Amino acid sequence: MANTIRESVINKEYKCLDYGFIRLVDYMGDDAAIVQSARVSYGKGTKSVTEDKGLIRYLMRHRHTSPFEMVEFKFHVKLPIFVARQWIRHRTANVNEYSGRYSEMRDEFYIPAPDQIRPQAALNKQGRASEPMSRDKADEIIKRYRQIQKLLFDDYSALLDTGLARELARINLPLSTYTEWYWKIDLHNLFHFLRLRLDVHAQYEIRVYAEAMAEIVKKIVPVAYEAFEDYILNRFVFSAVEAKILKKIMNENVIPNKDELKTLGLSIGEAREFLDKLEKLNNL
Amino acid sequence: MANTIRESVINKEYKCLDYGFIRLVDYMGDDAAIVQSARVSYGKGTKSVTEDKGLIRYLMRHRHTSPFEMVEFKFHVKLPIFVARQWIRHRTANVNEYSGRYSEMRDEFYIPAPDQIRPQAALNKQGRASEPMSRDKADEIIKRYRQIQKLLFDDYSALLDTGLARELARINLPLSTYTEWYWKIDLHNLFHFLRLRLDVHAQYEIRVYAEAMAEIVKKIVPVAYEAFEDYILNRFVFSAVEAKILKKIMNENVIPNKDELKTLGLSIGEAREFLDKLEKLNNL
Amino acid sequence: MANTIRESVINKEYKCLDYGFIRLVDYMGDDAAIVQSARVSYGKGTKSVTEDKGLIRYLMRHRHTSPFEMVEFKFHVKLPIFVARQWIRHRTANVNEYSGRYSEMRDEFYIPAPDQIRPQAALNKQGRASEPMSRDKADEIIKRYRQIQKLLFDDYSALLDTGLARELARINLPLSTYTEWYWKIDLHNLFHFLRLRLDVHAQYEIRVYAEAMAEIVKKIVPVAYEAFEDYILNRFVFSAVEAKILKKIMNENVIPNKDELKTLGLSIGEAREFLDKLEKLNNL
Amino acid sequence: MANTIRESVINKEYKCLDYGFIRLVDYMGDDAAIVQSARVSYGKGTKSVTEDKGLIRYLMRHRHTSPFEMVEFKFHVKLPIFVARQWIRHRTANVNEYSGRYSEMRDEFYIPAPDQIRPQAALNKQGRASEPMSRDKADEIIKRYRQIQKLLFDDYSALLDTGLARELARINLPLSTYTEWYWKIDLHNLFHFLRLRLDVHAQYEIRVYAEAMAEIVKKIVPVAYEAFEDYILNRFVFSAVEAKILKKIMNENVIPNKDELKTLGLSIGEAREFLDKLEKLNNL
Repeated sequence: MANTIRESVINKEYKCLDYGFIRLVDYMGDDAAIVQSARVSYGKGTKSVTEDKGLIRYLMRHRHTSPFEMVEFKFHVKLPIFVARQWIRHRTANVNEYSGRYSEMRDEFYIPAPDQIRPQAALNKQGRASEPMSRDKADEIIKRYRQIQKLLFDDYSALLDTGLARELARINLPLSTYTEWYWKIDLHNLFHFLRLRLDVHAQYEIRVYAEAMAEIVKKIVPVAYEAFEDYILNRFVFSAVEAKILKKIMNENVIPNKDELKTLGLSIGEAREFLDKLEKLNNL
Repeated sequence: MANTIRESVINKEYKCLDYGFIRLVDYMGDDAAIVQSARVSYGKGTKSVTEDKGLIRYLMRHRHTSPFEMVEFKFHVKLPIFVARQWIRHRTANVNEYSGRYSEMRDEFYIPAPDQIRPQAALNKQGRASEPMSRDKADEIIKRYRQIQKLLFDDYSALLDTGLARELARINLPLSTYTEWYWKIDLHNLFHFLRLRLDVHAQYEIRVYAEAMAEIVKKIVPVAYEAFEDYILNRFVFSAVEAKILKKIMNENVIPNKDELKTLGLSIGEAREFLDKLEKLNNL
Repeated sequence: MANTIRESVINKEYKCLDYGFIRLVDYMGDDAAIVQSARVSYGKGTKSVTEDKGLIRYLMRHRHTSPFEMVEFKFHVKLPIFVARQWIRHRTANVNEYSGRYSEMRDEFYIPAPDQIRPQAALNKQGRASEPMSRDKADEIIKRYRQIQKLLFDDYSALLDTGLARELARINLPLSTYTEWYWKIDLHNLFHFLRLRLDVHAQYEIRVYAEAMAEIVKKIVPVAYEAFEDYILNRFVFSAVEAKILKKIMNENVIPNKDELKTLGLSIGEAREFLDKLEKLNNL
Repeated sequence: MANTIRESVINKEYKCLDYGFIRLVDYMGDDAAIVQSARVSYGKGTKSVTEDKGLIRYLMRHRHTSPFEMVEFKFHVKLPIFVARQWIRHRTANVNEYSGRYSEMRDEFYIPAPDQIRPQAALNKQGRASEPMSRDKADEIIKRYRQIQKLLFDDYSALLDTGLARELARINLPLSTYTEWYWKIDLHNLFHFLRLRLDVHAQYEIRVYAEAMAEIVKKIVPVAYEAFEDYILNRFVFSAVEAKILKKIMNENVIPNKDELKTLGLSIGEAREFLDKLEKLNNL
């Protein structure tokens, strides 16, 4: 059974973006391994938690993170450099990246699909809008991306032809250039990565990889992944001030408007986020 | 001004437990340092956040943790070994501990104050009850602690007198023996430590140190500390299932009982925790 | 083949000290996995290194550590608390320890074997001498250890019988008490652990575990382990000043005495260490 | 005195490459802080080491790293993205980088100075040769760099003008684009960084920053830095096999040639490295 899962998931390539992919190279442990190491910690103390599933959910709920660290994943990822630069910020992982000093870079660059060619978001300073640009405009931009990338790879090749050191020839290659790496991480830190990178504020291009990773991970640790969804990913968090307002709403059955929320102690940004949360709650 | 704060907080010894203490040896950075490094990240993008306080609160609310990592604290702590063993589990810190291989251990052992001599908690498998034992029983136990500790230190001294290596003579010293260390950590990880160790589930003896540390830290980064209280320490978290029940309560104005909560998808433990949360919310 | 190795090494208990053990619970990767991830980094650049063994040795020699991080080991260890306290100083690992708050501690304590009952070392401030005490003296000390440990466990049991919380009843248990944990680490950091803990300056009681671990590891990554021995464990390091003296010796064929070494710039301690190194070199 | 050092080094900008710099924003601790925390560890055991300098050198020599972790540095660095990508591989540091999602990238790109325009190294697969290309060829390449960079920034500006999201407009900017960050690290890990990045195999463009950093650091911890140079940076390391050959040389006064070294157990690469080491030793 475990072997069947292993066979179905190992080395299966999940396409990401135009030329990228993620595939699981190897892993160690599963839901049973989480339980096994937790039972070492709690000894007889866990006797009453009769079910493994209950134990895993208890651990997740109470942020007992160390048993989740006992499961390890190793991925092979092909990704644009600007995605790699966001990804590498997660320091609790091991990485082996393709080196442009040792080897020639390949003629592969990321170009967004037309529906991802979007204007700057009005509110979100770091992101793109929810609607794409017109198809004409998008096509124009895509053409432009392609021309530049072709020109840059030609320039790179020409520089290599002059005999220039690889480590210097590559410096005008663009951030859209694809690179590759092996990336190894434990389940606890992977959940942390997913929580940040599945978020709507994460750049679309890294979210695509996070979603593929989530698909892979939930096959190997289905119980832990479900607990992660229930207790972390889909949880609702209210600040101290928001909680007071929530109490008021529960007592008075009236949702304050933005001005009232400001009077009650929320900043403009918080008021907006609070109303979004209430709406999301109401849509459950 | 900053210097006055520095002088008022550096090297001031905060007594903890019977023989322990914590004192701030040095630190680097304050609220302004958090803002300063955040502005490097966001560049012009933060122009609209006119206030430093608003920026710090925004960073905390959205878990932008790296600016908080730019502030560093170095503490000198004297603590019982069993507390040190819990403390050291926080790996993202630097530590220099007194060594029982190099030096003789001192005749100092922790004995709980009478009101902390408590029975095993009924519900909480890892903790003590909220009420102390009878004073007589407590006094009896304290006497016992003291006798054993005296006997063990005498034994240690006698073993040293035989010429036995220090690293071997010490092995029957108790977990209540005091040790000392220098401990250095950044503000982000310190907040993580405080969140776990200020919690009611943390063992009382480590909570005492966390509370002293919180006192120190809030003098140096008052704005960040307040944001930490509002957005992390005193926040309310509801799981996906709890959120659905919360919606139901807001719509129907009736709080389900434990059996109903079970039907709605909560485990027994969760139902209890959920009702506790509602009560806490109602007491705000 | 790989499966045969796996079967021969997984879950095999290596006895350590009187009641301790270490066993490999699981692992991920082997020599081939090191090569595989290194080849991702170097791409075509490694074509000329035709042999996997050559590549692994090259990586070790030049401290290209990341491919070694791609192999992971998970151990189950039973060890005295004073050993656990040294062990946990290695922060780049994951750990799940038996909890004396959740569960009752067991009646198992470490007592050194007679030949390890040794006096304080004369020179080495942190260690024991190379010769044991007399058998009579050792027997006397062992008897003493046993009496104290029996007394402490009786006291612990009696405290539990009063109803006292486990987290308080345990605080007078000795550092010789056995605990257990799951411990997970990657090969690069494991080599670092071994380098420090196989060293003659490491306390004997942790060295025993390091030796057992080395036995296990060399079965799984024989090529990497041999490279570790050749380039790290058994290497000779000479400081800048020592190197100058080495040159002098090679030119003049005379080994300076301690006074001369001092004139040449070594401290007393360094002079002793230098002569030890030369002798060790000469005995190769 | 300490304040004078502080004033002379804080915020002083060290120019690096054409548009880059490094400046120390803040730091915590100095040589005295290393001694102070070491004395906590060793307690009375260090009484005999009468001198602070002797203690620091002892700590460095015996790789007692934790006291060096008690000193912390915070730098502000402006650097090309391809250098940032090498730099970030050092995970035990804190970083806050300028974000191209929040803010517009600036019109600043790295172009190597003429004497650094060099061909691929013959032997060193990852580096450039020790001699520059002809001045004419270099000028030609520099002109080319400049044209491409101008074109790319114009393209970036044009994409922004279309209203395209910043996070998308930037993806064809080159790896030579300058970025900025705050970077915080402790002295132990900084020494590790310097050991790798001062090395002749490090890419020139990161070495320039390492050298500036070394200048800064040695002003603050002159004793520790000198110990780092003597025991780490300028040490000679011989593998087990090399040590045997060294013994043979010391006994026989003849240096084997490459073929003989191969017979004695060195690979071709090792033989070359060994002879280089001997020559370097002989030139001391």
